[in-house]
Amino acid sequence: MIVVMEQGATEEQIQNVITKLVNLEFSVHRSTGVVHTVLGGVGPAEVVDPEEFRVMDGVKECLRVMSPYKLASRRFRPEGTVVKLERAGAGTVEIGGQRVVVMAGPPSVESEDQVRRTAEAVAKAGARFLRAGAFRPRNSPYQFQGLGEAGLQLVRQAADEFGLFVCSEVIDLSQLGLVDAYSDMFMVGSRHMQNYVLLRGLGEVRKPVLLKRGVASTMEELLLSAEYILLGGNYEVVLCERGIRTFEADTRSTMDISAIPVAHKLSHLPIMADPSHATGRRDKVTPMARASVAAGADGLLIDVHPDPDAALVDGAQSLSPEQFAELMGQLHNIAPAVGRTI
Amino acid sequence: MIVVMEQGATEEQIQNVITKLVNLEFSVHRSTGVVHTVLGGVGPAEVVDPEEFRVMDGVKECLRVMSPYKLASRRFRPEGTVVKLERAGAGTVEIGGQRVVVMAGPPSVESEDQVRRTAEAVAKAGARFLRAGAFRPRNSPYQFQGLGEAGLQLVRQAADEFGLFVCSEVIDLSQLGLVDAYSDMFMVGSRHMQNYVLLRGLGEVRKPVLLKRGVASTMEELLLSAEYILLGGNYEVVLCERGIRTFEADTRSTMDISAIPVAHKLSHLPIMADPSHATGRRDKVTPMARASVAAGADGLLIDVHPDPDAALVDGAQSLSPEQFAELMGQLHNIAPAVGRTI
Amino acid sequence: MIVVMEQGATEEQIQNVITKLVNLEFSVHRSTGVVHTVLGGVGPAEVVDPEEFRVMDGVKECLRVMSPYKLASRRFRPEGTVVKLERAGAGTVEIGGQRVVVMAGPPSVESEDQVRRTAEAVAKAGARFLRAGAFRPRNSPYQFQGLGEAGLQLVRQAADEFGLFVCSEVIDLSQLGLVDAYSDMFMVGSRHMQNYVLLRGLGEVRKPVLLKRGVASTMEELLLSAEYILLGGNYEVVLCERGIRTFEADTRSTMDISAIPVAHKLSHLPIMADPSHATGRRDKVTPMARASVAAGADGLLIDVHPDPDAALVDGAQSLSPEQFAELMGQLHNIAPAVGRTI
Amino acid sequence: MIVVMEQGATEEQIQNVITKLVNLEFSVHRSTGVVHTVLGGVGPAEVVDPEEFRVMDGVKECLRVMSPYKLASRRFRPEGTVVKLERAGAGTVEIGGQRVVVMAGPPSVESEDQVRRTAEAVAKAGARFLRAGAFRPRNSPYQFQGLGEAGLQLVRQAADEFGLFVCSEVIDLSQLGLVDAYSDMFMVGSRHMQNYVLLRGLGEVRKPVLLKRGVASTMEELLLSAEYILLGGNYEVVLCERGIRTFEADTRSTMDISAIPVAHKLSHLPIMADPSHATGRRDKVTPMARASVAAGADGLLIDVHPDPDAALVDGAQSLSPEQFAELMGQLHNIAPAVGRTI
Repeated sequence: MIVVMEQGATEEQIQNVITKLVNLEFSVHRSTGVVHTVLGGVGPAEVVDPEEFRVMDGVKECLRVMSPYKLASRRFRPEGTVVKLERAGAGTVEIGGQRVVVMAGPPSVESEDQVRRTAEAVAKAGARFLRAGAFRPRNSPYQFQGLGEAGLQLVRQAADEFGLFVCSEVIDLSQLGLVDAYSDMFMVGSRHMQNYVLLRGLGEVRKPVLLKRGVASTMEELLLSAEYILLGGNYEVVLCERGIRTFEADTRSTMDISAIPVAHKLSHLPIMADPSHATGRRDKVTPMARASVAAGADGLLIDVHPDPDAALVDGAQSLSPEQFAELMGQLHNIAPAVGRTI
Repeated sequence: MIVVMEQGATEEQIQNVITKLVNLEFSVHRSTGVVHTVLGGVGPAEVVDPEEFRVMDGVKECLRVMSPYKLASRRFRPEGTVVKLERAGAGTVEIGGQRVVVMAGPPSVESEDQVRRTAEAVAKAGARFLRAGAFRPRNSPYQFQGLGEAGLQLVRQAADEFGLFVCSEVIDLSQLGLVDAYSDMFMVGSRHMQNYVLLRGLGEVRKPVLLKRGVASTMEELLLSAEYILLGGNYEVVLCERGIRTFEADTRSTMDISAIPVAHKLSHLPIMADPSHATGRRDKVTPMARASVAAGADGLLIDVHPDPDAALVDGAQSLSPEQFAELMGQLHNIAPAVGRTI
Repeated sequence: MIVVMEQGATEEQIQNVITKLVNLEFSVHRSTGVVHTVLGGVGPAEVVDPEEFRVMDGVKECLRVMSPYKLASRRFRPEGTVVKLERAGAGTVEIGGQRVVVMAGPPSVESEDQVRRTAEAVAKAGARFLRAGAFRPRNSPYQFQGLGEAGLQLVRQAADEFGLFVCSEVIDLSQLGLVDAYSDMFMVGSRHMQNYVLLRGLGEVRKPVLLKRGVASTMEELLLSAEYILLGGNYEVVLCERGIRTFEADTRSTMDISAIPVAHKLSHLPIMADPSHATGRRDKVTPMARASVAAGADGLLIDVHPDPDAALVDGAQSLSPEQFAELMGQLHNIAPAVGRTI
Repeated sequence: MIVVMEQGATEEQIQNVITKLVNLEFSVHRSTGVVHTVLGGVGPAEVVDPEEFRVMDGVKECLRVMSPYKLASRRFRPEGTVVKLERAGAGTVEIGGQRVVVMAGPPSVESEDQVRRTAEAVAKAGARFLRAGAFRPRNSPYQFQGLGEAGLQLVRQAADEFGLFVCSEVIDLSQLGLVDAYSDMFMVGSRHMQNYVLLRGLGEVRKPVLLKRGVASTMEELLLSAEYILLGGNYEVVLCERGIRTFEADTRSTMDISAIPVAHKLSHLPIMADPSHATGRRDKVTPMARASVAAGADGLLIDVHPDPDAALVDGAQSLSPEQFAELMGQLHNIAPAVGRTI
């Protein structure tokens, strides 16, 4: 923590800052310059908000030097994390490795036939995961909220038939066991990125977690949320960019593709991209999926529905199986240009 | 739902839209204009996203006519809702009535002495509620997370001693009973505004709920979240504006004061304002509290700490008891200018 | 400028930063800590972007200590600036003094009758300035762009008849002389806040300038734009908050009321508020005008039209003369609560 | 224009809306539904803000059916626009054609040597345009503002030596002739996207214009600004995405890659991308350049400096010649994946 005092700050003001730093268990180094006195503190900086110093009398600026997260930082594991899953029938998959991993599936499970047809199509086109919502958080209580456990069963069954892994959203700690029984990987949706009770629960399990960025969350906040899971001992965390909220209304949210290289610089965790939720519009999904891979994404989440216009939920953002296959074909050409395969 | 077709849309495209509307149980009215064909649908519009139509071939625009929320809309109760609480020792308080209600307290419960001193000071200055965090959702797992049940006990005790009501945050459904035992009103924080499991749980209880707006949530989304609670039969919901996330960095978030008149127009629910969390800076709290009351807020949440510079959490945004008393004095002059008392 | 090196930064990396600082004419002070080496530079910090250091190898963080603006900073004139205007017939007015100054008028000059009726009404209700657009920057080339010089004449004439000052927008340097001939004060609209050719031109004149904040501009950028004018020798600058662009769509922009206390802290320049352009909706103008005064605004800009529903431009945000008179009545009660009059 | 009346709107309210529509020269079609009366108006919809109706009594919603821009819309020229330039020595280049066009150069002209070395390097690597700032709009008056005409001369000279076209920023109408004399294409920076005096001036010339999106501008506003130029008879307009302002602080602005497919859908004008200004950080430029091409960009603007760490301006976002050559190599692999060459 570095605190720069105002020009003309009194000795009393400087002492107050030193006292506060010491109380917070910082070792303080004082540097008296011609214009400004600068106080450097070495200590558990990550737990203190610089704002606490900025409001003190005589303080000009305050800068936190150390990252507020540790286990999620690139420094903790410079070589990067590869999340590996194995399952009889589905084989092995690595997220964060050389191959770009695609998760695909319908936004919501609606029926056995719908899930089965989707699973068949996405497996054929090269997806490794079936991702289909069984518990759906929706803005409105009047919207379809998912089939629950029956939905999870259908997803597992279809995935097994076509050799896919299953990644399922968990929206409350109380459902952890249930989702666990049917899934190979947990997903935390953007609305729950700061549900710390849930994150702590996921730190206790030993299954990978896909953690989606909140629509108004900075990358630092995303990594702090990952830290909650890592701190529990679960190191299998995969980040996911899914669009942030801005003033622009031509897409549902603004997909922050630069979050991909930012994540790779700040953290060792893999990062995937979800152009379906980010754009909310079918015709934007394909170009944004290509852009994500070109920017270095470790994987993609793509909504696919056998008949998008008839989908109960998020049909507007779902590709048809044909559109998905076409996208996968394009990605096969783009991935090598960034040293990857798909 | 009104769907405007593109100039030159084919009859097949028009029929596809009609079919989709009919499948969604809309009665359709077709109006063929010189330039555009317009389809009007009467039905359960609130469950369908207009985007589902916008991506269809031949569709120019789509407009949802009916509000997606019903119970939270002003039309449902044009005269407005007054949330009334009674408690022996604390008397009666009405939120949404003529008097502006102030909730105050330390950002986090730290010790018996701290809570007691704060309660005494805020009661004396005119606050009606003691609000103090016992379970604290924090961005970082390394930050102080609150005293838990022990904290709730201290708050209840101090509130009872000084004749105050208690409003406490609940961050997970599993804590509902615990928080209930010590509090007169629940608070849902901004991070949990879209935790639907929690909202549904709060719909089942018969105690008022203070629902804070998410930092990236529109007013429509806030009202949809309120709808989850109302739909469960709990009509005692109070909204709260606490700042939205923008590019501006001189304050922690940008307090959207216009949300106050917007809420009053769209909904019958009272709306309070939290300038402490919105601005994150002590010296901005007082002017923004005055502005909130001048704009018509039904109440205020103010962080007060006996020694803000020593606070474990959010000291930067806490007023001292003296600053709080001074603010209350100013509000006594402003409230009458908008036909209120405090 | 303070540059914090990464843990483990090499001596070569440190020397590269020192060299760059020295090349930029900084005197460098080096502090070697247990964990981080910190370099402090005293020099013309305001011209260097900290980002230039952040991208250098081995740099952890960089903090600019000195404000990038000087003449606009509070430190330059701690007692605050009062912009004073005098004119025969209109008397004297001070912006930044004890009295809150109101500028009012139609969004666009449409006809002699319209301007005259408006001027009469706003003068009677207590406004001191007539503000009416003669050159109107509009998003679309198909929208009404104002009457030009003929409009300026009508405004001057009406203002003189009713003892008002005139504040007029200037949208290009080439119109400076023309607008000067008819006006007592210049206005720079939000679209031109970063038109530096125009700002420099306004630095050369000796008439006050009302400088509106851009819809995506930080307060620092606003003050840097003011610095362009001040640097030319024109110290009569008044800032104006008029809403920033956010995701919220219930109002045209989000009025950042906290910009008012922020400006007062950072700068000695007065700050006014424009709730008409900020909200874009008539029914929100009155509560936001009250909130602005309660937060400490030095003045208000209010759109008033004799028949808002018939206005060619921005009728949606214009008050009728009756609504304006009612607002002024409310402000008479609020201003004293913050130690002001109106 | 479609106006939906509130449930229970009175006949008088309906007649008021009809009168306003008729006054605005709309032909009105009335449809009386069971719940809502809907008024459809055919007329010059693009000049009227729907907000003007939304504030009227009894109005529920209002929807503008026709695009507010005409000449910039895809409908005006469905086959798309290809902007073609020819120059002896530089040959022919087409923007919007099959080949992705790269403009590169130093953020600011500093010296003959600097420009010459950069021109040589970028020409060799495959750039077709030299883009180098001679007039630099800067937030601060203390920052380097460019060499002016001397800079333009250096750029022209270097471009001619290495067979490049020149694209130069114009920041005020008064400089149009000067910039014209040395350049093959004009650039309008993001700060001037809504400088309508300048845009109208550019409508009069017969040289292509690169129009950059404002940092807080919607795509609709960008296209309306293009309309100002097109309306003057200059059809050679190229759009450019350069990042929008959001809360995210890890990059200077958030590059809205989805603006590329959005522009291609809404408009016939080509769109380029500027990852240097968007991200403001060297290490993010390359992945975002790749992503832009993968998303379908018609061209790129890349800042290149022979010694980025020594640049007077924007060095943080400049690639070295080696990094630029490496980027071009990567793009050679990505372009074919989207059916383009580079």
